[in-house]
Order: sequence, then C-alpha cells, then structure tokens
Amino acid sequence: MAVNREVNDDYTREAAEARLRAVSEAAGVSLEHIGSYSFDPGEAHGNVERFAGATQVPLGFAGPLLVNGEHARGEFFVPLATSEGTLVASYNRGMKVAREAGGVRATVVDDAIQRAPAFGFESAKEARAFEGWISEHLDEIEEQAESSTRTGCLRDIEQYSASRYRFLRFNFESGDAAGQNMAGRATAAACEWIAKHYEGIRHFQLEGNFATDKKASQVNIMHTRGKRVVAEITLSDELLREELHTSAQAMYKARQVSNLGGFLADVNNNGSHSANGITAMFIATGQDVANVSESSAALAHAELLDDGSYYYSITLPSLIVGTYGGGTSLPTQREALELLGCYGEGKVRKFAEIVAAAVLCGELSLGAAVISDEWVDAHERLGRNR
Amino acid sequence: MAVNREVNDDYTREAAEARLRAVSEAAGVSLEHIGSYSFDPGEAHGNVERFAGATQVPLGFAGPLLVNGEHARGEFFVPLATSEGTLVASYNRGMKVAREAGGVRATVVDDAIQRAPAFGFESAKEARAFEGWISEHLDEIEEQAESSTRTGCLRDIEQYSASRYRFLRFNFESGDAAGQNMAGRATAAACEWIAKHYEGIRHFQLEGNFATDKKASQVNIMHTRGKRVVAEITLSDELLREELHTSAQAMYKARQVSNLGGFLADVNNNGSHSANGITAMFIATGQDVANVSESSAALAHAELLDDGSYYYSITLPSLIVGTYGGGTSLPTQREALELLGCYGEGKVRKFAEIVAAAVLCGELSLGAAVISDEWVDAHERLGRNR
Amino acid sequence: MAVNREVNDDYTREAAEARLRAVSEAAGVSLEHIGSYSFDPGEAHGNVERFAGATQVPLGFAGPLLVNGEHARGEFFVPLATSEGTLVASYNRGMKVAREAGGVRATVVDDAIQRAPAFGFESAKEARAFEGWISEHLDEIEEQAESSTRTGCLRDIEQYSASRYRFLRFNFESGDAAGQNMAGRATAAACEWIAKHYEGIRHFQLEGNFATDKKASQVNIMHTRGKRVVAEITLSDELLREELHTSAQAMYKARQVSNLGGFLADVNNNGSHSANGITAMFIATGQDVANVSESSAALAHAELLDDGSYYYSITLPSLIVGTYGGGTSLPTQREALELLGCYGEGKVRKFAEIVAAAVLCGELSLGAAVISDEWVDAHERLGRNR
Amino acid sequence: MAVNREVNDDYTREAAEARLRAVSEAAGVSLEHIGSYSFDPGEAHGNVERFAGATQVPLGFAGPLLVNGEHARGEFFVPLATSEGTLVASYNRGMKVAREAGGVRATVVDDAIQRAPAFGFESAKEARAFEGWISEHLDEIEEQAESSTRTGCLRDIEQYSASRYRFLRFNFESGDAAGQNMAGRATAAACEWIAKHYEGIRHFQLEGNFATDKKASQVNIMHTRGKRVVAEITLSDELLREELHTSAQAMYKARQVSNLGGFLADVNNNGSHSANGITAMFIATGQDVANVSESSAALAHAELLDDGSYYYSITLPSLIVGTYGGGTSLPTQREALELLGCYGEGKVRKFAEIVAAAVLCGELSLGAAVISDEWVDAHERLGRNR
Repeated sequence: MAVNREVNDDYTREAAEARLRAVSEAAGVSLEHIGSYSFDPGEAHGNVERFAGATQVPLGFAGPLLVNGEHARGEFFVPLATSEGTLVASYNRGMKVAREAGGVRATVVDDAIQRAPAFGFESAKEARAFEGWISEHLDEIEEQAESSTRTGCLRDIEQYSASRYRFLRFNFESGDAAGQNMAGRATAAACEWIAKHYEGIRHFQLEGNFATDKKASQVNIMHTRGKRVVAEITLSDELLREELHTSAQAMYKARQVSNLGGFLADVNNNGSHSANGITAMFIATGQDVANVSESSAALAHAELLDDGSYYYSITLPSLIVGTYGGGTSLPTQREALELLGCYGEGKVRKFAEIVAAAVLCGELSLGAAVISDEWVDAHERLGRNR
Repeated sequence: MAVNREVNDDYTREAAEARLRAVSEAAGVSLEHIGSYSFDPGEAHGNVERFAGATQVPLGFAGPLLVNGEHARGEFFVPLATSEGTLVASYNRGMKVAREAGGVRATVVDDAIQRAPAFGFESAKEARAFEGWISEHLDEIEEQAESSTRTGCLRDIEQYSASRYRFLRFNFESGDAAGQNMAGRATAAACEWIAKHYEGIRHFQLEGNFATDKKASQVNIMHTRGKRVVAEITLSDELLREELHTSAQAMYKARQVSNLGGFLADVNNNGSHSANGITAMFIATGQDVANVSESSAALAHAELLDDGSYYYSITLPSLIVGTYGGGTSLPTQREALELLGCYGEGKVRKFAEIVAAAVLCGELSLGAAVISDEWVDAHERLGRNR
Repeated sequence: MAVNREVNDDYTREAAEARLRAVSEAAGVSLEHIGSYSFDPGEAHGNVERFAGATQVPLGFAGPLLVNGEHARGEFFVPLATSEGTLVASYNRGMKVAREAGGVRATVVDDAIQRAPAFGFESAKEARAFEGWISEHLDEIEEQAESSTRTGCLRDIEQYSASRYRFLRFNFESGDAAGQNMAGRATAAACEWIAKHYEGIRHFQLEGNFATDKKASQVNIMHTRGKRVVAEITLSDELLREELHTSAQAMYKARQVSNLGGFLADVNNNGSHSANGITAMFIATGQDVANVSESSAALAHAELLDDGSYYYSITLPSLIVGTYGGGTSLPTQREALELLGCYGEGKVRKFAEIVAAAVLCGELSLGAAVISDEWVDAHERLGRNR
Repeated sequence: MAVNREVNDDYTREAAEARLRAVSEAAGVSLEHIGSYSFDPGEAHGNVERFAGATQVPLGFAGPLLVNGEHARGEFFVPLATSEGTLVASYNRGMKVAREAGGVRATVVDDAIQRAPAFGFESAKEARAFEGWISEHLDEIEEQAESSTRTGCLRDIEQYSASRYRFLRFNFESGDAAGQNMAGRATAAACEWIAKHYEGIRHFQLEGNFATDKKASQVNIMHTRGKRVVAEITLSDELLREELHTSAQAMYKARQVSNLGGFLADVNNNGSHSANGITAMFIATGQDVANVSESSAALAHAELLDDGSYYYSITLPSLIVGTYGGGTSLPTQREALELLGCYGEGKVRKFAEIVAAAVLCGELSLGAAVISDEWVDAHERLGRNR
C-alpha cells in the first residue's frame, strides 16, 4: 500500500499524494487541507517519515515584547501558533505591561543537554569502583564522545548510584542545536569505548530514565536540561493597578496561596501557565514540541520590595530549544525564527531569552486575571469558537 | 499598527495580510509561507487572536494501528504532525508488532476535568467548618455550576486542606470537549454563589495551583485529569525476538532499571517517550498542545507471564483530549479527526483509546531499541536533516 | 542460646538478664545500664520480643506551652526525650514567645488511618469493573472489616488505578489508638470476604505501597494519615523584634526563600524542623517512633497582615499518634502522657493539638534563629558534649 | 520555677529532681519512672537542656546478623529499642534467613553531610556571576570552613540556582560524627568570609531548605546525605520457600506491584519498612532520632537471576549516623554501640553497614509476610499488649 513506502527518495509531492489518497480512500474522508502545504516535501526530509502533508496551526503575533537580555535586546513580535483562544491576547496584554515597566530582563544561567546510560555490576562495591575509573578516564571518554559529533562538546559526567547500578548523566554543550540526538550518539560512542575498556559490566542500557528526555522530573529541575533561563521584572504598584486591575499586595498574597497549593499538589511548576507560551512558540519555530513535557517546568518567585513595587521572576530550568537543526529549517518555522532574528548559528541563547521573557508576560497577565476575576470573562469573549 | 488590531471582524485574509506585512517589514524578513494557508481565516475565530497566518507542521501516517477498545475497534492510520525525524518510523514499527500480536487493548478507566479554587478563612477551624457546608450544599452548587454550561456536568468536589485554606477540586464531565474553559466558567459560577451564601470567606482565588492545568503534578497522576486510559498488550517471546530483536526477559530486566532510575530522578513517567506520540497526535488533531505538560505523564507496568510472554501496559492518567470545540474544527485538524472517525460528538473516548494504543506502540519500539542498540542507528539513518 | 528464647512467658527479669548476659559475654562488653530499667518486664509484653532491657533517653521539659485548641486548652509542660543538645532550649524559647502572643491555636481537621491492598485483574477493563462492585458492596465490606475490631470504624475506601491493578485505600477511624494494626487486621478481614465473593482477582497483596506506612509520600500529604492538624499563631512585629531579634518582614522574606529552595529540592516539608519536636515527644510518650517518617511532613504557610503582624501556621498532614495501646502504657511513657492529661481514651485529639502547637513553637524559634544568625551560636553554647 | 533553671551547672540529680517535682506537682501526677535513671545527669550535658529524667524504651536483640561488609564482618546481635510489637521478631526472622543465605553484603558508596545557605542578588545575572567567583575561591572558602572544626573537611560545594538566588550545598566529610552541627558551624564561618569578600549579596540565610536536614527530599535521595549504603543478598528459591513460605517469582511479582503503587503514591521509599529497623537502632545507639525523616528513604531493587534465585538490594541514600558525639556516649547508648564494636572513632562506616544489613533483613521478612499472608497473623500473636 502506498502509505507504507519508506524509501528516502520519496519526499515528493507525488509520493505524498499517493499516501494521502490511499489513506483518504481507505477511510472515506477528504484530506484536502492536509495536502495543501506550500513547501517542497524535500524540506521535510529528516523531520518526518511517510510524509503525506502538513497540519496548519493558526498563528498570531503578540507584542512587541521588550527584552533586556544579554543576547536579545529590543522589541520583538512573538509568533504564537495555537488553537487556544485567549492565549495570544493574554500574552499580548502581559507584554504591554512589561513594556511599560521597562522590559523584561532575561538571563541564561546554565546550558547542557543529556543522555544518561545505566551500567550494572556484580555488586554495589563493583559499581562504586566504576565511579573512580570513569573520573580517571574522563579525557579519553570525552575524546570518544566528541569523535561522533562536529558541534557537541562533553562538559562533564554526573554520577548517581543505586543498588548495583551506576547512572552516568553525560552533560553536553550542543551549540545552537537542541542536541538530543547528538547527545545520544556521542554517549553511545563513549559507552562503546567504556564497555571495551572496563571489565565487569554485567548490564548496560543507553538510557535508564535519568536523562530525563520528554518527561517532567526533579533531576531536570535541579540540574538543568537544555537552557536554564531566568526572566525578571519589577513592576510598580501603580502600574499593576492601572493595567492589571490588581495590586502588588494582592499579587504577592496570591503567590503564597499558589505555593501552598503547589506543595500540596506536588506540581513541577508553581507559576501559572508557562506551557501555553512555550508550546505556541515551539510550534511556530520548529522546536521539538514533545519537549514541552520538561520545558514547561517553572519556578516562580516574587518579592514585595520596600518601595511597594513587585519583583517577579520565572525560572525555566529545562527549556529545550534550538535555532539550528530539527524543525527549524522548515519553511514557516524558519520564517518565524528569522522574524525574531534567531535563525541559525549563534542564536540559541537569544532565542531562549525571548522565550523566557514571553513566558513571564503570560504569567503576569494570567496571574493578575485570576485575582481580578477577569479570567473567565476573557475566555467568554475570546475563547469560544461555537 | 496593523498588528495590534483585535476586533472580532478581522478574521479576514486582508486583516491577516496587513498584520503579516507590518511584522515582516518591521523585521525585514519574508513571511511568505506563514501567509500560505489554505483555509478561511474565519475558521480560526475563537482559536487565536491577532491572526496572521499559519505554521505548517509536516505530517506522516503511522499504522495501521489495530485497536481492541470499547469504542475504537479495528485498524486506524494515525496522523502524526512532527518535525522530529524517526518518530513516525518508530511508532510505525511498534504498530506493526502490535498488529502481529493481535492488537492493543485500550480502556478509559476514568474521565473528569477540573478547576480548583482556593478559599481562605480566619482560622483552620473555620476552614474546616466550610467543608461540611459544601458537602451539605452540593445540590445547589451543582445547579449553579451547570447553569453556565450546556454540556458540562459537575460530578463531585474533592476537598483538600492546608493552613486556613480549603482547596476545592471540582470534577466535571465534559462530554466530547476537553472542557477546561467550561470547567473554569462553571466553577466561577458556583463560587460566586458560594461567596454570596457563605459568610467568613476572607480570601478567594479561582485557581490555587491545584487543578493543575498544563502542569505535571502528582494530584493529576493520582486523581485523573481528562481521561485516564490504559493500553495493554501481550507479546510472545518469539515475536519480541523476531520483530524487535530483543526478548521478554531483556525487556523485563530493562524495566527494572528504568524503574530504579525513575525513582532516583523523580520522574512523572517511568515509560519511554509517551510525549512524542501524544504531541504529534495533538498537533495533527487540534488538541490544546500545551496540555502535553500533564498528558505526557505515564505509568508503565510490565509482567513476565508463566508462558514466557510479556505483558506490557501504559497508563495515561491525565490525557486531555477533545473531539469537539477548541482546535478540532480547524480544517487540517478536522480532517485528521475525521480520518480516525473521531470528529464531533460521542467520539472522545474512542479518540482517547486510539491515542493510548498509539503511545503503547511507541513504547514497545523505543523500549526495544534502547536494549538492542538500534536506537542511535535509527536516528542516524532517519533523523538527520543536514 | 538464651537470647533466642521467644516464648510468651519470658517477660521476666530472669529471662531478660539471661539474654543480656549471653549477648554481653559473646561481645565481651558490659551492658549494665541497659539492664538498669525500673519497670516490670511484663509491662513490655506486646511491645518488644526477646526483651533484654531498656534504652534510657534523657528527658527535659519545655514550656509551659499555651494551647488554645478545641481539646487542649491551657498550659502544658512538654516532655521531650532527646539527645540533641539545643533542642529543648529552642522549643522552650518558641513557647515563651507563643505565650506572650496569647498562645497557639490548634485544630485537628482530619483523622484516618489506612491500609491499602492491591488487587490485580486480567485487564484494565476488569479492574474497572471491580470499582463499581466495591462501591455497591460497601456495607458488607464495612461489616466484615469491623468484625475484627472493637474500636475501629471503616470510614470510606478511596480507589486508585493503574494498569490492570486497583489499589483500595481503606480509611479507618481508630479512636485513641494509632490504629495501624487494627487497620491491617480489619482490611485483611474485608479482603478475605472480597476475595471470596468477587471472581476474577488474579493477584492480591495486602499492601502495595499506597498506605503508605512509615514512609514520606504525597498521598499522605494530600489525603491525611493519622491526624491532620493545623497550628496557628499571630505575632506582632514588636514581639518578633524583642523576643526573636527579627521582624515580620524578615520572617516573611525568609519564607519565600525557603519555599523556593523547597520546590527546588522537592522536600516534603517547607518548614524548618518539625521532626525534632515530634520525635522527642514521640519517644517520651510511647508513640511508634518510626512514624516520624511520615509524621514529620509539614506545610508551612505565613501571611503578613495589614497591621504589620505575622500570621504563621504549620500543617501536619500525617501525624500518627495514639494515647492508648502501643507503647503508651509503658511506665515512663505513660507518666509523660499523664503529665499532659493525655493518657487513655478520649485524649488523642488533645494530644495531637499539643504536638502541633509544640511544633509551631520550634518553627518560630529556629526560623528566627536562622535569620538572626543565632543558630550556630546556640549550638556552640548548648550543643557540645565534648 | 524550678523547671526553668537553665544554667550549665545544673546537670545534677538535685536539679533534675527539683524540676521533676515542680512539673509533677503542677500536673498532679507521679513521675516516678521518669526519675528512675541509672546514669549521672552530668552525662546528659550537651544532649538535653532542663534535664529532668529519662524515658526508658524497651530493648530486644535480633540476630545474630551475618554481615559481609568492608568494615563490618561477622555476626552481630542487633539492639533494637522499640515499643512496636512484632518488630524484633520480624527482623530476627529476616536475619535467620540471611544467615542461611550466607549473609548480607553491605557497602558504603558515598558519605557527606551538608548545610546549604541561600544567597540573594540584585538579578539572576549577578547570581550567575557569584557562581564563578565561588569556584575560583574554593581554597580560601575551604580554609575558612575548616578553621572552625577539628574533624570536618569540606569536600565540595554543589551549586543550584533559581530566580536571583544561589543555593550552595556544602558537602563535608565528618569523620565518625553525624556532623550536622559541624557542618552548620563550618558553613557559617565560610559564609562570613564570603560575605566579607564578595560585594553585591543582598540577602543571606544560612539555610534555605536545600540541605535538607530532617526532611525527606529528592535532593537527598539523589545526592546523598550522611551515608549512602547498599545492602545486597541473593537467596535461592528453595530458601525462600522453606523459610519465608513464598518464592522468588512471587517476591519479584510483588515488587512490580510495589513499584507501581510507589509511583502512584509518590513515595520516597519503594521498599517495605526501613524506618522500623532504623528507628529502633537509632534509639538504642544514641543517634539523632529525628533524622529518621530522611534516613528512612530507601530504594529497593530486585532481580530474578537465570538460576531462579532472587537478588535483592536496598539502598539507603541518606542514612545519618555517628559513632562519636551526639547521644553516642550516653550510658545505655554507648553500651549498645560497644556491643556492636562500633563505639568511638573509626567505626562509623562499620555501623552504617550493620544498619543497612539489618534493614535488608526486615525487608525480606515483611516483604515475604505480605505475600504469604502471615503479616496480620504475626501482629495478632505478638503485637497486642492489651
């Protein structure tokens, strides 16, 4: 059946149409829009198999967003691809307030991508011995790991232990790529060398749930996965009152309740809705959207300053982004990155800063709406498509 | 500036083009592909504000997937919108094995959507008194909540307490819609009534980080958010050897290591990569993709049966899906749902079963690849776009 | 060997001495003090096997502690058995401040003890069917459960599901006993009846890590185990300055940092050191001290009030206490309970309130010391025994 | 009032009796047994303030326990101070089985004690700058830290970040002492130096909930607090059948269910009841019993070997123990340590190995009892004191 063809030379309109037709006929439904993409299927080579068309996700612009980062400086229109009504309007509102407050500071404080193989031994004692050997052979391991990649760089290896197992968490710098595949490949190369040179490994698996890729986890919140970015702002009480119909005191008090609820619910995010902005930007810019799982983790922290103003920050501990590779060169995705001045090499930290700054604006907007009772109203006005 | 228009009548090609042009010129980049969508902008009304175009996400089909559910029965071609190379091929491989094993059983075991307001009182004692009052007035509260919705139905209210606060977790049945907005609206209506009739509420906020929307949390893993779906399969050792180049024993052993690593890393998912399949299906079918945050939580459980075969199951405790409302009626998204026979009313559990069954296939494929060392190879062959 | 005798009639000084001598000679050390207990060994029957003597834990009194509870009202000298220098002094300091603030409010907001058996079925669908059957047969199950106990009362059964398993969390009211053994026995009786009357149970185990006894867990933080008690106080800024050398603002600010650190570390207690006071009271009063594992969980919540004063509360969600049974009738332990007016029936909530009130005082004292840099000094002055 | 005297020279029988009398008369109860201790009150100096007497906790011996550690080798009678009936018998049963299996292997795989101060800055960028400065000044910081202690040694400083804060986790080697006070003192000394030499610190607190002392936390499970010890054993199927009335297959299957329940409940311990043995040994040997909070964390891992035998291990990631200082020199406590050959310097790893080995035996016994339905029976027979 046409849908099953999987050879590399079939990223053509013809092959795609054949698949689409086969599926369409089998199910008896029209797939006209899925077939209405504007790009050359060859562009999707490496991004999808059994290519048949494209999903069109509506896109709106929020902003301009004023960012005072180290890499991102100035105003940006932020492309948000979403089907959730109110989302663009909410982020846009937050960006307006942030502009009036002088913009959002954004700082990348850490940067590493991981793969975490598990090694099993005869006993815990032998597993412990492995620890020292790894530390002594870091140079060789690094050489092996980096032999498989042009861009990746092994920064260090964290070690964790339980029972007769040892989990090595390889931390790579991945340049402008998100870097998961590089990390997997380089770690595999390193492990092959380790297995050849270390006797006594009884069990090996390239991943033992410790990376942890595409999953929310405490190890990623503590130890960073991808970019760790902090966005910060200070808002006067007056601005909060005028623009967000709340106050510094009310925001601060609500934060206490959100923290209390967060501890009780054991949430990986004591903020409001970082996932919304991150997801919409990820779709728009060709990120690996499944990484929303860990990228949406967030630590909100606020302070009421002596002059009555409100310091607010959001820390994204595991934001997985790239401006090179993956889906970033797909046509619409590339345009969105170019719009931000973030396509290609040397741009990834700039992009991370913009994402974090945008997230902060969404936190302000929803955080205030929840308090001032405007939340449901906004959804009523904007969010109903029937 | 054109990009800032936000009136309701501007879901037109003209308005969108004006926005696109304004942003494009400001940034000095071409946004041609973003402007190349095939649908009437009016279709996006309620899904996005400041509409300017669309992101095109490549789509491939995996399958057919053989599902033995209560609602989904038979073979389905599964639409996956993604830019992550290897993903479609991996799920497809798992679906092939699952077909040969007789298909995937899928069961929706629970179904509810939440909003969780926080109520503050003078003291813990007064907070406790509120508990009883709520229980006694459930009928009236239900009536108020349901007055704001045609489709939603208040099932029950869980209560949680800390300090002088009470968190009420309203559980709604939402029919075929994902239901978050309904839940927010209905809860707000109920709370307005509560606030009017109960004296002594000192503080109220419609959400106190206990729902928990678009966040990974233990409360959702324990108590369900959206659909709680289990997918199950039993594979013979022979099939595992022939098709996945591993064995029941090896899969089982790797599961132990993944559990150990999972406890150590404190992960919300002891499986492999549910986020991949869920995200690709969510984009393709118009789900609220930000819900990947909680929908990607998973509980993997395996058993080695007496006859040497391998029982494997994946439980998705907080899968947020809809077949009505939200982005489901957008043109490409609707086509994808129609293809699965899942568009519109009375279809949501069928769709949930298909998602869970697809996820299970991806777990088999990656789970086996990690063990049999085929993982990195597949990424080398399929996943490089440069 | 004498140490191995385990018959019931050997709770005598002679039997104990024989054991002590055997062990002492085997190891070549004197065990004179372990043999110097003041009670009749028969008193330890039911509390220990292979009885050989007693450990003497130093005891000091903190207080008086002024409690404004529902059951505990007035001043109490609190017996603390500990070997950690500074502990008594620190709690004592907190109690002094609390007295000056008018005392500590304490409220038991929930009360239940659990056992959580796991039932396995052929499939998730069959596991789901079990849910309904249990709900329909609650009366019979309750009857069976309660047939095994004079004092226990089955309040309800929570249900949790994953894969083809169903975890039932039986909630019992246990009167003045901590109740774990009663809960185990009653649940076993209920499950025996269930197993006899429900076909299709493939696997059963009386406990599946869901109770969770003697372990820190989120289910206990959310859903109570033992007593859920809240202690509250409001302190003027002046009092904080005079007695604790800090201020309401400083305490509040430190709380934000502790919350941030707590989310990052994933701690089951965002307070300071509840375990200290709980453990010392548990040893002194004959509680099952291993329950410190879950009893030490705590939720701290503070508010800065409009008049500048500081509201502070500590919620103990899983405090396991009894005033009857277990070690409560051992001679020194009983005296400590009698001193508090908490020995025997009808006293357990009074005791729970006193424990929570004492814990709050310790939080104030250490919380302030950390801020005002008095912490290390106190340990230098009081906590060195060499 | 006599109870309030707190001068250092009052560790005398007279002062203690005066306190006891005052409290006794105020409450109108006899405190005869609390006053019946066998040691010189001066021995309690540094362990308790406002000393008034002692709690007598019944003690029984389990064992002999056969340990094949690096430091502990041979058979040990294990002193267990407890009031929980069945506990000694259960551990004793496990020890018997373990002896027949050739003993328990035990290995200390990591060893460090912490204090984790929080530093606040003007912005996240300044907090990041602090990171590098700390790394560059490690030698000076180490010198300052160690100037305050004879025995402690600063191993390294982990850094964690969120918002504009930096949490430094100081890791100390503490020799044979548990070391918390040393760690606090040394960290304070280091921080004083840091504060003097680094400009721009806006906020400092010596502890920010990241150590985390006397609390269950993921950071301690991952990164060790105190001793990280693994105990291991391999049991033949035959031995399991004969002695524990179960089988390797049944134990392994139950482990899967316990893991599933553990993930669902979010427990810090997927084993059975490590807290029981740890607490009883802690009381008996003068450990800081409040550390049961974190010491009871455990990672259970089992494997079914090709020859049908059962490998079982328990990892205690945060076992806080000392054989010097604290309560270890109190008379009964010292005797218990001497009995194990663990009193004083150079003994702490030996003691840690014995604790872990004992814990493993308790896991075997209860783990098997839960499966073979002997659990409730044992409590009926042994655990009722009324």
